[in-house]
Amino acid sequence: LKLDIVLRAEDISPKELKGKTAVAIDVFRATTTIITALEKGCRSVIPVVSIEEAEKKKEELLASGHGVFTAGERKGLKIPGFDLGNSPQELRDVSLKDKIIILTTSNGTRAIRNSEGADRILIGAFINCRAVAEVLASKYGDVIFVCAGRLGEFSLEDFLAAGAMTYYLRKKTEQALEISDLTAAAEKLFECTKGDLLGFLGKTKHGKYLKEIGYSRDIDYCCTLNTSSIVPEYAEGEIKI
Amino acid sequence: LKLDIVLRAEDISPKELKGKTAVAIDVFRATTTIITALEKGCRSVIPVVSIEEAEKKKEELLASGHGVFTAGERKGLKIPGFDLGNSPQELRDVSLKDKIIILTTSNGTRAIRNSEGADRILIGAFINCRAVAEVLASKYGDVIFVCAGRLGEFSLEDFLAAGAMTYYLRKKTEQALEISDLTAAAEKLFECTKGDLLGFLGKTKHGKYLKEIGYSRDIDYCCTLNTSSIVPEYAEGEIKI
Repeated sequence: LKLDIVLRAEDISPKELKGKTAVAIDVFRATTTIITALEKGCRSVIPVVSIEEAEKKKEELLASGHGVFTAGERKGLKIPGFDLGNSPQELRDVSLKDKIIILTTSNGTRAIRNSEGADRILIGAFINCRAVAEVLASKYGDVIFVCAGRLGEFSLEDFLAAGAMTYYLRKKTEQALEISDLTAAAEKLFECTKGDLLGFLGKTKHGKYLKEIGYSRDIDYCCTLNTSSIVPEYAEGEIKI
Repeated sequence: LKLDIVLRAEDISPKELKGKTAVAIDVFRATTTIITALEKGCRSVIPVVSIEEAEKKKEELLASGHGVFTAGERKGLKIPGFDLGNSPQELRDVSLKDKIIILTTSNGTRAIRNSEGADRILIGAFINCRAVAEVLASKYGDVIFVCAGRLGEFSLEDFLAAGAMTYYLRKKTEQALEISDLTAAAEKLFECTKGDLLGFLGKTKHGKYLKEIGYSRDIDYCCTLNTSSIVPEYAEGEIKI
């Protein structure tokens, strides 16, 4: 069982993905938001890259009788005219039962869409990292963790979540793990910081930015381990449980 | 004092280097070899990219009356016809006093040459990481750690050495450190693994390969902290103390 990490959504090559399971990770906040929305009973999440694509898709779905929300952010903030932002905490008070969410974010939705070409695409974050590891241990082949990164830069929280999944996978499987040096670094770093994820990740560039724009509660929530047992999967344009 | 890390020699942009101090790092083994050679009294090390360049340079220097050794490796092994390999342990039994070494290696020499454009280029490894930190604390401005990487891939040992230098720099300076997320990851990882560097790095891809081809003693030596207090500097084509 081979494991590797891609540090930024833009670094993925279709060649690397072939025959593998990709785990798309954008801890702050897209993949945490997606997991939370599906857990709250939403029917599916459709990741799209642009605002225009989101609005067009909403019209189409409304026309065919679906309950639809647009959701997403630019620079961390809710997109004007959209129904929802990209805040998992915000979703707590919204009824999502059977709704379809069309989501566009700065980094995460690209990580998911760029993973097309993998045999399977799973959605991971800290809140479901042990559940992801269980799925990887039980079913599939080689794994590539696709970190969204942030505006083309390294994202420590995504890297660390890949380490967390590797850490739990090692506990769950009897298969030998053949891990890249990057994955070894992430796993070890998770092992060292899991006792105080929030302390460590709150000081990251992205963590500090989200606090500045008023999303401290999202940081707390996104840095919590294993509160969810669902592992959403992206296929044919839609993310579902 | 800003600190950042470039993960592979080929990722450096001259724009990033401008006005900064670059620290070129190739723990296994070029920068460890260079530090060792200079400590043994060699006059300078000239990093060149190709075998042809090394041979041509040797002829020139011999013609002008210098004592010269060619040194280097391809695929870890000594280059046929060269005087020396790229093994710091091998240098122990060779008299280097006042000699000039012309060095070409797979990754490290490119990291050094690609750093041209920085205000200063220092040569770092585990064996001199505290000494590098002292220099960075006392004199210069913003820092970019240039990891050689390995054949275009991430190199855990170089990344960790950048973390070590950051770790010691934090102890040495009263200036506030403004570190990138990548640097924060490296520093924390060093903090967690410094008690057993050899155990952690011996399992890396490069570590395993060097063991396979018979260089276990180099691994031990390259993973030893702070045995040297010299900080070589590269300028005008030559590395000197």
